[in-house]
Amino acid sequence: MLNIAIIGVGTVGSSVANILKDNKEIITARAGRELIPTIGVVNNLNKKRDVSIELTDDINKVLDDDSIDIVVELMGGVDKAYEVVKKALEKGKAVVTANKALLAYHRYELQEFAQDIPFEYEAAVAGGIPIINALREGLTANNIISIKGIMNGTCNYMLTKMINEGVEYNQILKEAQDLGYAEADPTFDVGGFDAAHKLLILGSIAYGIDAKPEEILIEGIQNITSFDIEFAKEFNYSIKLLGIAKRVGDEIELRVHPAFVPNDQMIAKVDGVMNGISVIGDKVGETMYYGPGAGGDATASAVIANIVDIARRGKGSPMLGYEKSFNKNLKLLPKDAIKTKYYLRLEVNDKAGVLAKIATILGDCGISIEKMLQKPLKNEKSNLLLATHTCVEKDIINAITELENSKVVTQKPAMIRIEA
Amino acid sequence: MLNIAIIGVGTVGSSVANILKDNKEIITARAGRELIPTIGVVNNLNKKRDVSIELTDDINKVLDDDSIDIVVELMGGVDKAYEVVKKALEKGKAVVTANKALLAYHRYELQEFAQDIPFEYEAAVAGGIPIINALREGLTANNIISIKGIMNGTCNYMLTKMINEGVEYNQILKEAQDLGYAEADPTFDVGGFDAAHKLLILGSIAYGIDAKPEEILIEGIQNITSFDIEFAKEFNYSIKLLGIAKRVGDEIELRVHPAFVPNDQMIAKVDGVMNGISVIGDKVGETMYYGPGAGGDATASAVIANIVDIARRGKGSPMLGYEKSFNKNLKLLPKDAIKTKYYLRLEVNDKAGVLAKIATILGDCGISIEKMLQKPLKNEKSNLLLATHTCVEKDIINAITELENSKVVTQKPAMIRIEA
Repeated sequence: MLNIAIIGVGTVGSSVANILKDNKEIITARAGRELIPTIGVVNNLNKKRDVSIELTDDINKVLDDDSIDIVVELMGGVDKAYEVVKKALEKGKAVVTANKALLAYHRYELQEFAQDIPFEYEAAVAGGIPIINALREGLTANNIISIKGIMNGTCNYMLTKMINEGVEYNQILKEAQDLGYAEADPTFDVGGFDAAHKLLILGSIAYGIDAKPEEILIEGIQNITSFDIEFAKEFNYSIKLLGIAKRVGDEIELRVHPAFVPNDQMIAKVDGVMNGISVIGDKVGETMYYGPGAGGDATASAVIANIVDIARRGKGSPMLGYEKSFNKNLKLLPKDAIKTKYYLRLEVNDKAGVLAKIATILGDCGISIEKMLQKPLKNEKSNLLLATHTCVEKDIINAITELENSKVVTQKPAMIRIEA
Repeated sequence: MLNIAIIGVGTVGSSVANILKDNKEIITARAGRELIPTIGVVNNLNKKRDVSIELTDDINKVLDDDSIDIVVELMGGVDKAYEVVKKALEKGKAVVTANKALLAYHRYELQEFAQDIPFEYEAAVAGGIPIINALREGLTANNIISIKGIMNGTCNYMLTKMINEGVEYNQILKEAQDLGYAEADPTFDVGGFDAAHKLLILGSIAYGIDAKPEEILIEGIQNITSFDIEFAKEFNYSIKLLGIAKRVGDEIELRVHPAFVPNDQMIAKVDGVMNGISVIGDKVGETMYYGPGAGGDATASAVIANIVDIARRGKGSPMLGYEKSFNKNLKLLPKDAIKTKYYLRLEVNDKAGVLAKIATILGDCGISIEKMLQKPLKNEKSNLLLATHTCVEKDIINAITELENSKVVTQKPAMIRIEA
């Protein structure tokens, strides 16, 4: 059993507490022990929060409490968070943080300070995407050639809208603010600073390079106009706010700025609020990691992954993912019970009444048609290409047999599933 | 120091040995100790191989050698590999394998047998993509709703060609065979069996479900015709060979088959020989993992990640990725030394001679133009939108100043970098 204190019970903190309860069974099976959100530390005890854990405003009591094993720092800011985290480590408590600003300024001091005490921060970069894990463990065989990432969902949402809908910057900023994607003062996001904090963290893992935000090139998306968008469309580019870490000889480029990216690159296909990070290793080539970069539950997913990691320390991850079996009694779904949409290719004689006959057979089997395409063949035949609404595999197999038996088709029907 | 024996020194085995030498410095820094490819076991000692490690054909001598810490099983096949791996575990040696068939049939017995001895297999699914790592560690907070993956590069190459170039199945199969992407007998790939082996492994980590290849739905891509491709294009689908693991109540779907996938899904954008796996968790939402699913170096990258993981056992991963600092003396590249392509937006008076003047100024700064678009503005002005060939940031900044000073532009030029 591990007791967890959550410092800062806002959107992410509440999600951490709630997911540890909601998904307790599977998390316990994976971690090998119970992970208990024991207490939350808040500034204002009177504010209503959607959590059922005990709350306190006395942070020192929590840090001094020997029964707390893991401190989850979600208070934000740099200086105060740095003090809190240091004190937790001093007391021998493992720390998990989602605080990118803290790490952008103090990651090397904290590494020095933590020594063998676990200090994890998956949620600090690209929210729910396990990119720290990928870089720190998945790609260890490689010299990293470059990292190019879309690490700020606000900017990507705005740029995607500008490209797809031709909306001007100021209008889309207002829209993003109304939707809660952008702050009242949006500078931290649209100015590239948020992405820069994340980039510095990735740069450290890839290259061991120390740099502060003030030392690197940071430009935002504020000056992009519809002319730039037209240029992008003309030459088949997207515009993305990229964080780039790249090795050139014995020097490392670290830079954040909007960039034209050719549309055939995977990173150009990451649209809307999503994040995507492309990593090129000298041996593996390009891998890309895609997912939600923000949001309470997505960020909490990364925080909890770190907590599980800490619970497993000393043993490594269990081979098939579970320390203990979990009692779900999950069974394999029988093949003919699959439910999905289906495509059928039916070769038929091109004459009146055939389509009616087919529709009747399908209808009798409980299958309705969503869309259809008819393509003429030689010899007065046609291919009917049709997609069904969702139905059960058994019914489709039955329908195919019926179609064959009825002789309305001149060849065995072909079936392909549709995964929408 | 850890001594590694490589059983099977083909494409992947050679890459493992060579990368451990080529990237020794960075791998040692990350693992915290030296990882030595000590010996390779082969069937035929006379065959020439591109490795510099000692080779033997006496597998038992290697398995009995107490100085060997880690056995990397790359021999392939099921029964013999099972015996070798069991014997290695019996001797207390950690095992790393890339053998998906072995795991498709024996993963639960091997888990039971291994107990606390490390047994890793990242390379068995999707080659260089750290998907096992993501599922087993990155997403532990989540109940997995579904996994949909393109896990066979041969099929994806063929289907991409069929969609993009309208080539028929038999022709593209021959092409894939000529390129070495498909075997002389392609059934294992095009019939979906390779993908099924991988899917079963992912299904175990996601759901703890035990199933053998014979128990699940497996269909290949052999019957897809140009009519199906036309239907896909008409309704904005791609066709992909998908491995799907999905929870429906207390039942698990495991199935491999070609499927129409709407083009706006990320997985539909994974083209050519690349693999891509989309995972939906109940808390994180969708994350997607993209990269090379095959190839000696890419697969070896995953094998070595597992070896590093084993070297780190008991300590966990170092906070910033390195157990020991490495002596590269990497420095931050000065901001004005960046080299890339640049886009300039220049507002100019729409009269004769202006373009010549601009081209002269750029040329004098050592900058050549790659492409250009001119857009008329009101008041007899124009926007010149141009892209340069690769040049140095300092030169672009200089050129922008020169353009401003010359009064040939009527507004401060805008610059956006191009990352191609």
